[in-house]
Amino acid sequence: MSLSLISLGLYDLRDISKKALDEARLCNILYFEDYTSYYDNSLEEIEKAIGLSIERLSREGIENNSEKIIKEAKQHKVGILVIGDALSATTHSSLLLEAKQKRIKIKVIHGSSILTAISETGLFLYNFGKITSIPFENKEIYEPYEVIKRNKPLHTLLLLDLKDKNYMNAREAIDYLLRIEEERKEKLFTEDTLCVICCALGSDNSIIKAGKVKDLIKLTFDKYPQCLIVPGKLHFHEEEFLETLK
Amino acid sequence: MSLSLISLGLYDLRDISKKALDEARLCNILYFEDYTSYYDNSLEEIEKAIGLSIERLSREGIENNSEKIIKEAKQHKVGILVIGDALSATTHSSLLLEAKQKRIKIKVIHGSSILTAISETGLFLYNFGKITSIPFENKEIYEPYEVIKRNKPLHTLLLLDLKDKNYMNAREAIDYLLRIEEERKEKLFTEDTLCVICCALGSDNSIIKAGKVKDLIKLTFDKYPQCLIVPGKLHFHEEEFLETLK
Repeated sequence: MSLSLISLGLYDLRDISKKALDEARLCNILYFEDYTSYYDNSLEEIEKAIGLSIERLSREGIENNSEKIIKEAKQHKVGILVIGDALSATTHSSLLLEAKQKRIKIKVIHGSSILTAISETGLFLYNFGKITSIPFENKEIYEPYEVIKRNKPLHTLLLLDLKDKNYMNAREAIDYLLRIEEERKEKLFTEDTLCVICCALGSDNSIIKAGKVKDLIKLTFDKYPQCLIVPGKLHFHEEEFLETLK
Repeated sequence: MSLSLISLGLYDLRDISKKALDEARLCNILYFEDYTSYYDNSLEEIEKAIGLSIERLSREGIENNSEKIIKEAKQHKVGILVIGDALSATTHSSLLLEAKQKRIKIKVIHGSSILTAISETGLFLYNFGKITSIPFENKEIYEPYEVIKRNKPLHTLLLLDLKDKNYMNAREAIDYLLRIEEERKEKLFTEDTLCVICCALGSDNSIIKAGKVKDLIKLTFDKYPQCLIVPGKLHFHEEEFLETLK
């Protein structure tokens, strides 16, 4: 039959599109994958909204069970509900590739994503460079710092790790970058660096705050998920916008 | 009152989220802006789906009428329906900034966007560099070529111009890049360069085709909108995926 990657969108059940909802309802087997992102509704609430029972997949679930899923997709209409836009994680494109290679019909239904929602900061999307992410286990990890450096004069979006419903906050991301700065001493990320913190974008309680690192670390943000942006060179328009977020 | 930027999503009316639909229905004054993107439904069809009358804005409309819109937003709940995700064009963030500066309540409802939909190519979103776009009037324009060069080894997404319902196609984009190559002779974009063409992503008739320039230019694509991707260094996984799109 077929394999569909169905996007739930950015934050909660009200972000799903009609296209995604209709596609989900046509499926015989539905999985929900929530290890890569925060989602504000429970599995039970999603089941109620769609009207079908859904099986939760862990990260190991999708990687270890790809054989099972592919096998099912040969016989049934299988859908995987994904938070944000469908292919943001590489495991999804692996699965899609496997299905394509096995000549299973595939379909992707798109949804809203943090990767474009960050335009709410007033920073222009075409002024961003490569995206990077900060893992919890980052003792020997230099990639995020180096991406900021290589991206300059472009902006850098740093996505933050999550593990077992524990979401990294922007403060931890800043502490990590300051620690690498202390090792590297390249004056790339200091207490005077301008940053933007985004919390719970797409929700009614979203917070966007711009400021120097030394000012931002005095604040506490309790809405999740959070991400951090290190702006590069600012267009005067972007600068003015960030002023309103200080 | 307030100003809301309301995303319609990627392709047609079935891409709108419940959040966006509900927000639109709460507005007293609704505008629709379609100069930056292709949308598969007519203004009349959108009006019918939302149940309110809507005024169309041209590019000049949003730029020249910002004063009028801001003035209305002081008294009324004003919504602007935007194709794709709400802030992809800089005119929208200008308008939002103006509203913020005038202390008008603002709201952004997000939607699916071409900027993440391109992950359907199997190329990883975090391997992309800066986005660029090719205008119709490009005689003295070198920016897209230079962005591809600077982005290497990252991938480059090239968005294509539209004007008065005339959409640039991927062939025109390729011809433009070959012409700049002929001037520059940097062997950056030749007949042997691997490219990916995306047409009508998000629709049931979407086409994604990968191949060398010399092979792609033999093909004709009649679905719109189209965009072009010039991949950089490929992960073996991305390479395998593109193989299925040849």
